[in-house]
Amino acid sequence: MLSDLWLVGIGTGALGHLTLQGQNALRAASTILVPRKGAGKDDLADLRLSLLRQIDAVGKVVPFDMPVRDETLPYQERVSRWHDEIAVKWQEALAGAHTDGPVALMVWGDPGLYDSTLRIADRLDPKPTVRVVPGITALQALTAAHAVPFNTVDGSVCITTGRRLRENGLPQDAQSVFVMLDGACSFQNLDDPALHIWWGAFLGMREELLVSGPLTEVAEKIQKTRSEARSAHGWIMDTYLIRRLTETCGA
Amino acid sequence: MLSDLWLVGIGTGALGHLTLQGQNALRAASTILVPRKGAGKDDLADLRLSLLRQIDAVGKVVPFDMPVRDETLPYQERVSRWHDEIAVKWQEALAGAHTDGPVALMVWGDPGLYDSTLRIADRLDPKPTVRVVPGITALQALTAAHAVPFNTVDGSVCITTGRRLRENGLPQDAQSVFVMLDGACSFQNLDDPALHIWWGAFLGMREELLVSGPLTEVAEKIQKTRSEARSAHGWIMDTYLIRRLTETCGA
Repeated sequence: MLSDLWLVGIGTGALGHLTLQGQNALRAASTILVPRKGAGKDDLADLRLSLLRQIDAVGKVVPFDMPVRDETLPYQERVSRWHDEIAVKWQEALAGAHTDGPVALMVWGDPGLYDSTLRIADRLDPKPTVRVVPGITALQALTAAHAVPFNTVDGSVCITTGRRLRENGLPQDAQSVFVMLDGACSFQNLDDPALHIWWGAFLGMREELLVSGPLTEVAEKIQKTRSEARSAHGWIMDTYLIRRLTETCGA
Repeated sequence: MLSDLWLVGIGTGALGHLTLQGQNALRAASTILVPRKGAGKDDLADLRLSLLRQIDAVGKVVPFDMPVRDETLPYQERVSRWHDEIAVKWQEALAGAHTDGPVALMVWGDPGLYDSTLRIADRLDPKPTVRVVPGITALQALTAAHAVPFNTVDGSVCITTGRRLRENGLPQDAQSVFVMLDGACSFQNLDDPALHIWWGAFLGMREELLVSGPLTEVAEKIQKTRSEARSAHGWIMDTYLIRRLTETCGA
């Protein structure tokens, strides 16, 4: 029975992003649940296994298959059903593995930020005791790589998705806007010449790509870089920060 | 001469928040600049020194005094002058210490989020090569401690300050709102019964305090807890998340 579930943020692919707390948790776990992502995304499963080897984790690795989302359903229902199905896959994989003791899940970035692991854990029956180990997010990896502040002096920050940016435009009352989950390069619809963009992909990894500059000048370069890298790797994870450069809100 | 400056995020007071990258940087640095915060804040300087001892860092610790802000100036000017003065203090301290090689600064949380280290580094003359090592922020320590997601499904997140919350009210187009730098418990001005709050202080430390619940029910308890803890310690660092609980945006 699954009684202790540890959700461990591992950062964005650099072993160095792992915290001492995260390292200790992965070393102490009896079982480590690892998703098999399927064609093209095996890189991510391999990265997790390689990280476990590098820190000498000894727990039993139990793989599970990620279900496919039913794209015919409305968004919220599609996501909710998918979470239900993932919870079932976790329980099936653990039952088949006949293990005991704490189970760890390695979560890309931080277990709370645009990740569903906590919501899936909430569907388990009986409910395990959940412990969350925070991890470096893509947003921090992005600002660190560009050596740019996360926020302006006394300014507010909005973190949003590509879908919301396309539907609602740029949030007007935040001085800094981070966009995640944007497979459609939605920044290309913004044409304010005062906007500056800091973009990054594969943040923290050897393959890291960075582009920054006035949005209208570098938008095309980012799209091209992204599209080429995606073809080469079979997948891409990227994010970006947009800020209006003014006298008081400069980077 | 200061040619390499490493800004190392150390998380919020737990040794376990330090990343492997951060640990390696602090061990490799020749010099470590540590602020003396003055009466009541020596805890924070001590925590930094204790962390260095625990990871066997061997660099020379060089303390510097934090200048006092001129509260008579308008906000942006006051902050800007203060950053100028801190840059001078760094340079004076380093010149007096006659050290060579990479200089590391241990930054609470992440070097980019509501921290001025990057802006101060930008004032140094000549400009050193700056490397940023991301760290666990108070926001991640907060959501991890409460085991609550950072964002709702497909929802956007606003990170703002107590001052902005008082002046502008709760941002309306974000499903989740994090408030930092709020010494005035500005949440007490919000009276929407649908709001839920997750509050935490001394996150990650032994002294960690957590309160959560419907805002109108727990606001008073948070103020009392905060005020007593602040008296007992001489200082406090806290932050909170506010979210409107609805059918689709539940935690």
